[in-house]
Amino acid sequence: MEELIIKGKKAKEASYFLAQASTAGKNQILDHVAETLINESGNILKANQNDMINAEKAGLKGAIMDRLLLTEERIVSMAEGLKEIAALEDPVGEVLAMRKRPNGLIIGQKRVPMGVIGIIYESRPNVTADVFGLCLKTGNATILRGGKEAYASNLAITSIIQNVLAENGFPAECLQLVENTSRESAVALMQLDQYLDLLIPRGGAGLIRTVVENSHVPVIETGVGNCHIYVDDSADLEKALAITINAKIQRPGVCNAAESLLVHQNVAREFLPQVGTELLKHQVEIRGDKAVCQLIDGAKPATEKDWGTEFLDLIISAAVVSSMDDAISHIQRYGSGHSEAIITENYSRAQTFLDKVDAAAVYINASTRFTDGFEFGFGAEIGISTQKLHARGPMGLKELTSTKYIIYGDGQIRE
Amino acid sequence: MEELIIKGKKAKEASYFLAQASTAGKNQILDHVAETLINESGNILKANQNDMINAEKAGLKGAIMDRLLLTEERIVSMAEGLKEIAALEDPVGEVLAMRKRPNGLIIGQKRVPMGVIGIIYESRPNVTADVFGLCLKTGNATILRGGKEAYASNLAITSIIQNVLAENGFPAECLQLVENTSRESAVALMQLDQYLDLLIPRGGAGLIRTVVENSHVPVIETGVGNCHIYVDDSADLEKALAITINAKIQRPGVCNAAESLLVHQNVAREFLPQVGTELLKHQVEIRGDKAVCQLIDGAKPATEKDWGTEFLDLIISAAVVSSMDDAISHIQRYGSGHSEAIITENYSRAQTFLDKVDAAAVYINASTRFTDGFEFGFGAEIGISTQKLHARGPMGLKELTSTKYIIYGDGQIRE
Repeated sequence: MEELIIKGKKAKEASYFLAQASTAGKNQILDHVAETLINESGNILKANQNDMINAEKAGLKGAIMDRLLLTEERIVSMAEGLKEIAALEDPVGEVLAMRKRPNGLIIGQKRVPMGVIGIIYESRPNVTADVFGLCLKTGNATILRGGKEAYASNLAITSIIQNVLAENGFPAECLQLVENTSRESAVALMQLDQYLDLLIPRGGAGLIRTVVENSHVPVIETGVGNCHIYVDDSADLEKALAITINAKIQRPGVCNAAESLLVHQNVAREFLPQVGTELLKHQVEIRGDKAVCQLIDGAKPATEKDWGTEFLDLIISAAVVSSMDDAISHIQRYGSGHSEAIITENYSRAQTFLDKVDAAAVYINASTRFTDGFEFGFGAEIGISTQKLHARGPMGLKELTSTKYIIYGDGQIRE
Repeated sequence: MEELIIKGKKAKEASYFLAQASTAGKNQILDHVAETLINESGNILKANQNDMINAEKAGLKGAIMDRLLLTEERIVSMAEGLKEIAALEDPVGEVLAMRKRPNGLIIGQKRVPMGVIGIIYESRPNVTADVFGLCLKTGNATILRGGKEAYASNLAITSIIQNVLAENGFPAECLQLVENTSRESAVALMQLDQYLDLLIPRGGAGLIRTVVENSHVPVIETGVGNCHIYVDDSADLEKALAITINAKIQRPGVCNAAESLLVHQNVAREFLPQVGTELLKHQVEIRGDKAVCQLIDGAKPATEKDWGTEFLDLIISAAVVSSMDDAISHIQRYGSGHSEAIITENYSRAQTFLDKVDAAAVYINASTRFTDGFEFGFGAEIGISTQKLHARGPMGLKELTSTKYIIYGDGQIRE
């Protein structure tokens, strides 16, 4: 697709500029963009209004409409996000593990930008500014391919950013928005490996699957979280209760919310009625195995499919297990490798659970809701990786960089 | 493909075992396999003899036949490789950057195995033992899909390894060889993302391209090296001569050999006749631009295609450039991002070249031939990554691992 090849070339050019840009220069852009977004919020809101009207005409409803909506407050929050990124340390240029080899070569590993990053996303226009901030700070050029329904909003935000870039002597092509929002343009972006170094899909499971199956560009898979809370028979049941409720209801629509509760048989009789009452009080639907349904009035029988489902809603699956090993097997079978927690006061069980459970984040006695770049102290987050290559768990600035070996010689040749 | 689904499941099971295996246990396997390969070398050589006969019947010749061939000496070298891996430090279990958050959560990043690694390779049967050693040491289960022409050799080696695994109480499925060597089995392996965490193609550019375009599993792209030597006008021309000759002729068939020479116009008249004489003396064909052809008797005119070609042979392309920036532009346009060198005595030019050239390894005053896991001091190498995700440059043991966040709480819930 011609549009993408042209944008790819321009992005590559811009990436060479960005790789050499100073931290001060990049931070100045971020601060100016933050101010300009607020000063020109009227234009952004007008464009968003158009998107909202068209979306309504197209029959979109509910959660999608909410994700699409921009408000004065949401624009302020976008601007604040950029200022926070400006305040973070620049990871580019750090030299790791420099050492001298017996032949006198001095070899170090230098942190450098990825180059050109592609982002495919759906209806949230605030992703436009968020992603730009993270990629610019890490010296990467960005090609955005947002959803059709958010195009006017994305274009308004991108135009503001491109003006600020140009005014400050940066190539406007540090950020580019794909104009063609057809399915074909998404596929063309996935095949743009000549120019793209990394592709990150941000959206639902369907989008992520499509990208994984079609991309020739290296992908980081983010998002799907079928997270479990396992309550061991050594657990402090007060902690177990508070953590289960928090992990399920504090924000049920996000990937680090708990979707499944596993309870050791020795404490099932005591714990399940308590947690059942609390969950039901908070309008949580409980889908349980036989033992759970016997111990919680109001629990419904779970189907096989429920164990593997990320509900993203006020629903939880629940089962009684005969041992911690049983719980770990269940998690291995149904988990998505996102966040898993054990509640226990037993030292050895805690360590064994940490060792054996294969997930991006494994918790002892804490809510899975903490799997988040801000909660982990990174000051920013581009997503939560559930793959094992390159980045696993919350991704901050460092995860948007690569490295290169730099070698200082004095005429060395290989024998 | 049923064979692959069964092998995928078994590999996943074996990976859970391996993730908990002790370093001592893994090292014992490596030492036993090394001994057994030598003790049973007769069987391996017999199987290899069959492969060689069939390959000859099929009309294979030259370099492929040499890659396919095993000898007593090559088996000893495979065994020694395994012993060297046994002697290296085990990267699994290291905890990085543990810290306490304001809410009391203690968060660390623990190095863990990838899980299941797939390797697609061509005619070299020694890859079977090499890859097994690296993957076992890092706690990964491995599925090998080798070339049809090496099947008997690969099977003989795999059987020996599986016996040693079983005798030592490890699952034999820590290493599995795909029986079906059709094109379909390679594609099926690329789509086995349900069980595979990583896929590494080892072979020529065609194989790597096929894997990049078809894999649903995260891939590490290795290998293609169109490496340049740039001789600046500030160069010590003695060093420049020695390095150019070494980088081109010391082992021309490998990815870190130089394929292209760029010379600053101010030293072209002095340097090119010298280097030309030496190259021609070593039977190197020189394909030059106009200026090069004028200054080197016996140089042939280069075509546009030559600038982008990895010859892997006694051929070098050569051009005169008007400045270092010109050289960098040429490298950006034609380079493959593998290894690039500048020869200079000028401090600022050296630093600028290091900064601006976008490659896995960038050298000042040294031969590109050093881009190698052993030369870099890693003690092992699974390949040289030319992508930017996860690993860039020579990959040692650490690059075959992932991480997971481990979080120690005391009942924390998210506000």
